[in-house]
Amino acid sequence: MIRGLRQIEPYVAGAQPAEKKMIKLNTNENAYGASPKVGEALASFDADSLRKYSTLDQADLRAVLAENLQVRPEQLMIANGSDDVLSIAFLAFFNNDEPVLFPDLTYGFYKVWADLYRVNYHEIPLAEDFTIRTEDYLADNGGIILTNPNAPTGIYKPLAEIEAILQANRDVVVILDEAYINFGGQSALPLLSKYDNLVITRTFSKDAALAGLRVGYAIASPELIAVMNAVKHSINPYSVDLLAEKLAAAAVEDWPYYQANAKKIQKTRDWFSQQLVKQGFTVLPSQANFVLTKPAGISAAALFKALEARKIYVRYFPTVDRIKDYLRISIGRQEEMEAVIKTIEDLK
Amino acid sequence: MIRGLRQIEPYVAGAQPAEKKMIKLNTNENAYGASPKVGEALASFDADSLRKYSTLDQADLRAVLAENLQVRPEQLMIANGSDDVLSIAFLAFFNNDEPVLFPDLTYGFYKVWADLYRVNYHEIPLAEDFTIRTEDYLADNGGIILTNPNAPTGIYKPLAEIEAILQANRDVVVILDEAYINFGGQSALPLLSKYDNLVITRTFSKDAALAGLRVGYAIASPELIAVMNAVKHSINPYSVDLLAEKLAAAAVEDWPYYQANAKKIQKTRDWFSQQLVKQGFTVLPSQANFVLTKPAGISAAALFKALEARKIYVRYFPTVDRIKDYLRISIGRQEEMEAVIKTIEDLK
Repeated sequence: MIRGLRQIEPYVAGAQPAEKKMIKLNTNENAYGASPKVGEALASFDADSLRKYSTLDQADLRAVLAENLQVRPEQLMIANGSDDVLSIAFLAFFNNDEPVLFPDLTYGFYKVWADLYRVNYHEIPLAEDFTIRTEDYLADNGGIILTNPNAPTGIYKPLAEIEAILQANRDVVVILDEAYINFGGQSALPLLSKYDNLVITRTFSKDAALAGLRVGYAIASPELIAVMNAVKHSINPYSVDLLAEKLAAAAVEDWPYYQANAKKIQKTRDWFSQQLVKQGFTVLPSQANFVLTKPAGISAAALFKALEARKIYVRYFPTVDRIKDYLRISIGRQEEMEAVIKTIEDLK
Repeated sequence: MIRGLRQIEPYVAGAQPAEKKMIKLNTNENAYGASPKVGEALASFDADSLRKYSTLDQADLRAVLAENLQVRPEQLMIANGSDDVLSIAFLAFFNNDEPVLFPDLTYGFYKVWADLYRVNYHEIPLAEDFTIRTEDYLADNGGIILTNPNAPTGIYKPLAEIEAILQANRDVVVILDEAYINFGGQSALPLLSKYDNLVITRTFSKDAALAGLRVGYAIASPELIAVMNAVKHSINPYSVDLLAEKLAAAAVEDWPYYQANAKKIQKTRDWFSQQLVKQGFTVLPSQANFVLTKPAGISAAALFKALEARKIYVRYFPTVDRIKDYLRISIGRQEEMEAVIKTIEDLK
């Protein structure tokens, strides 16, 4: 019998089927591919250069990103996807006795990191309409983390409400996970100069269509970034590989390409939402690249299975009580979403 | 004043100068480049495929690696470099009250992870000759971690002695960090079938010349691998990016290429060690791709600076008392090491 083994309940990510012909709408990936600049950066990369370690500070990527975001490079920390960034943030910032607050319905990983790192936390139920109530986050706490727009609801919380939470919690870190911000919401970036307790996290997995490359970042005051860097350098200092840094920088340098795709995705999302409403479905108002919808005339379980049988993969959360009758559907290309609507029509 | 910020002392990695003309011998990188197969895998990679998440289980890479190592795929866990693997292992296995044991002089990161994750530990001094004394690891403990060959000494501990430690500690996990094993030592792989408390960790950064790509792995029983996977999936499930998985698999498929380079490095190491001895230097017997040496006729500090002035970068540990008079020099190409010897001769 071996002693000392950790028992934990890991995060369960959406499945990653590898079939050739499928419509994959289960992990909120970008419907469109890489910018030609990313392809060029890949093609010109010398495999021999991989014999050396990657950089410790991603100075090149931080430089282009700082310019793109209109912040200073020392306000940025890059890591291996926003999961890595957030995991580091939990260790860096949530060391108080009071509970860290987050919604009962949000990115499922917050609870997992809190459990893993033994952070005290309190899950606050969303309102009946699935919005985050500002007043719930004004009580004494050990820190706050919110996703905006929230996942899996897609609902965006207006910046004035976010500011009220920042204002009332100046003595703890408030993390805003903006993974989906470029699909319609307004970023809290302008609030950084006013609130030194604000940490914004972002990812290249959604708007930059680089989920498979693993790059995410935090934007905050240089002081909070320094704390995150100390934690990063106490875990895995080289976590961003050389190819990831190079290709992510190429993506930033062709940002209008990604903005144009985000616009297309928003247009398809709004069209798709309307079609679902026409079918009698309930659709939460989304500012993300996915929608959370409650089917009508067919159960979520039955629709999930029927779509799966046609190799259309969406996300179903049967164990999450509040949304067990809902499906979360990522927004693919227009023709993919038309195929989903066609399937739903055929089923009814 | 913001509460809850973590105060820690991070690991300090070797510098990563990016100059064009330099001899970089400070972070034990491989002197030789990637196999042509790795270059081909890179050239044929489609940047668009990066829009999808990387795999959760690295099934393809584990399959080729399992065949190469003659183990089963379920005995392997892949992560973002062996730093990531080891960080996961600390969380997965070192949850006892008794102290985890490791040498006072070994990979400096063990102490950092133990501090970060609040693991109780005890550093055991190496013997006077810098070897690991078997008897020191037979006392009651909460787990053991050893590097073999050890770093920064390069000294290899014979397998029979490793087995004695495994035998005496069947109720806790014993981690063997084999980052440098393919430069001359004999791997503990054959002991896996006898000892279910053994976890071997490896990296693609040294023998596979892919430090900049970030791939490492653990080899253990399926039961211990499952515990590591639960921890991995509680931190950052997608940490191995798609390019990393693909290129690492290509490297494994051309393993004889890397074995041939390891042989060249060993030959150069033994030649270089002899040359240092001729200069009156003390050289610890190394089975790794670096040597730890105490200069004669010039101080470590002075030699470090003189080499640096000539853009020859080696590692100097002025704050580590036992080796403050030593330098750790990675083994580069033969001509690079000849340049180092020439510089030393000129200085004397």
